[in-house]
Amino acid sequence: MNYLEEKIQREGEIRPGNILKIDHFLNHQIDIDVMRHIAEDFKQRFSDVPVSKILTVEASGIAIGVMLGHYLDVPVVFAKKSETLNSTDEKYVSKAFSFTHKKENHIFVSKPYLQASDNLLIIDDFLADGEAVHALIDISHQAGATVSGIGIAVEKGNQKGGRELRAEGYRLESLAIIDYMDYESKVIRFRE
Amino acid sequence: MNYLEEKIQREGEIRPGNILKIDHFLNHQIDIDVMRHIAEDFKQRFSDVPVSKILTVEASGIAIGVMLGHYLDVPVVFAKKSETLNSTDEKYVSKAFSFTHKKENHIFVSKPYLQASDNLLIIDDFLADGEAVHALIDISHQAGATVSGIGIAVEKGNQKGGRELRAEGYRLESLAIIDYMDYESKVIRFRE
Repeated sequence: MNYLEEKIQREGEIRPGNILKIDHFLNHQIDIDVMRHIAEDFKQRFSDVPVSKILTVEASGIAIGVMLGHYLDVPVVFAKKSETLNSTDEKYVSKAFSFTHKKENHIFVSKPYLQASDNLLIIDDFLADGEAVHALIDISHQAGATVSGIGIAVEKGNQKGGRELRAEGYRLESLAIIDYMDYESKVIRFRE
Repeated sequence: MNYLEEKIQREGEIRPGNILKIDHFLNHQIDIDVMRHIAEDFKQRFSDVPVSKILTVEASGIAIGVMLGHYLDVPVVFAKKSETLNSTDEKYVSKAFSFTHKKENHIFVSKPYLQASDNLLIIDDFLADGEAVHALIDISHQAGATVSGIGIAVEKGNQKGGRELRAEGYRLESLAIIDYMDYESKVIRFRE
C-alpha cells in the first residue's frame, strides 16, 4: 500500500451510502504532509508528459492543485461553481452533477486562462461517477487545449468514472482506488 | 512597493464599482510564484506569534492557506459554504455576506477540527467590509481558540473591514492595502 492508501486504511471512516469520510486530512482539514506526498506522487507519475498548467475545480481540488503547482512550477486554474461580479470575461461553461451536494452545477473558466497551446493536467480529490472530471475535459476541449493526464487522489473503483475515462483513452492516475468498502465490517479494499 | 503591490500596479485591472480584477494570478488562475512570495511574507510577518493551524474559507483562501501551511508546516482548515452529505459532525456556524456574490452565506467548520488549544492564523485573499474574516473570528471563538493573527493578501483600505479589525485589537497584516483606486484614471495608490 502507498502512503495515501495506508492513511485511508488507518483513519478513513466508512459511512452509510458508500461514503468515505476523510475530511480530516483531505478536504476540510488539510494535512500538509499528505498534500506533499500526493504532489510528489503525481509529479513522478506524470513526469513523462508535458504539463503547462493544472486545471481543477473549487473547492477541494485547489489544495492538491496548488501543492502540485508548487512542485511542478506551473500555474493552476480552478473552475468556479458560480459567477462572480468581478469578471466580465467570456467563459467556458460545462455542467456537472455533484454527488456530494446532490445538485447540478455549472462550472466556469474564464477564456483568457486556457489556451489551445496548453497541456493540461486535470486534478481532483475524488473521482466517483466522473461528472466533475468530464466537465473539466469538456472545458479543456472547448479551449482547444490538450489533456495530458488526469490525477485523482481517491477513486471509487466501483463507480463508473474511472472505467469510462480509461475506456476513453485518458491517462488517468488515481493514487488510491477503492474497489470495495463495507460499512458493517469496516473493510476497505484497494485495487492492486 | 513590495512584490504583491508591484504585481497589482503592473497587472491589476480596475473595473467600475470599486472592483479590482486580479483573478489572473490570485483567485481564478493562480500564479505559483506569487503564492510563494505571499506565503514567505506571511511567514516572516507572523514569525513572533504561535500558530498551530491556519483557518480560511473556501474557495480562494485555500490556495494561500495551503502554500502557507506548507511553509509553516501546520494544518489548514477551510470553512465551507454549504453542507455536504459526507459529514454528520457537529459544526460551528457563522454568517457572512459575500460582496463578490451579493448574498448571505452561512459558513461552517466541523467541530473536531478546531480545539480550544489552537492558535489560529486566519487567512484570506481579500478584505473589504470584513464579513468573511469576522465570521472566521466568530467560529474561532465558538471553538474557544485563540486568534493569533489575520493575514490578508489585498485589503481595500477604503472599506471598513481593516479599520474595524485593527480597532478591535487584532494583529492584522495585509500585504497590499489599496487606499485609492480610480476607474477613469487607472490610478491605484497603496498605503505606505
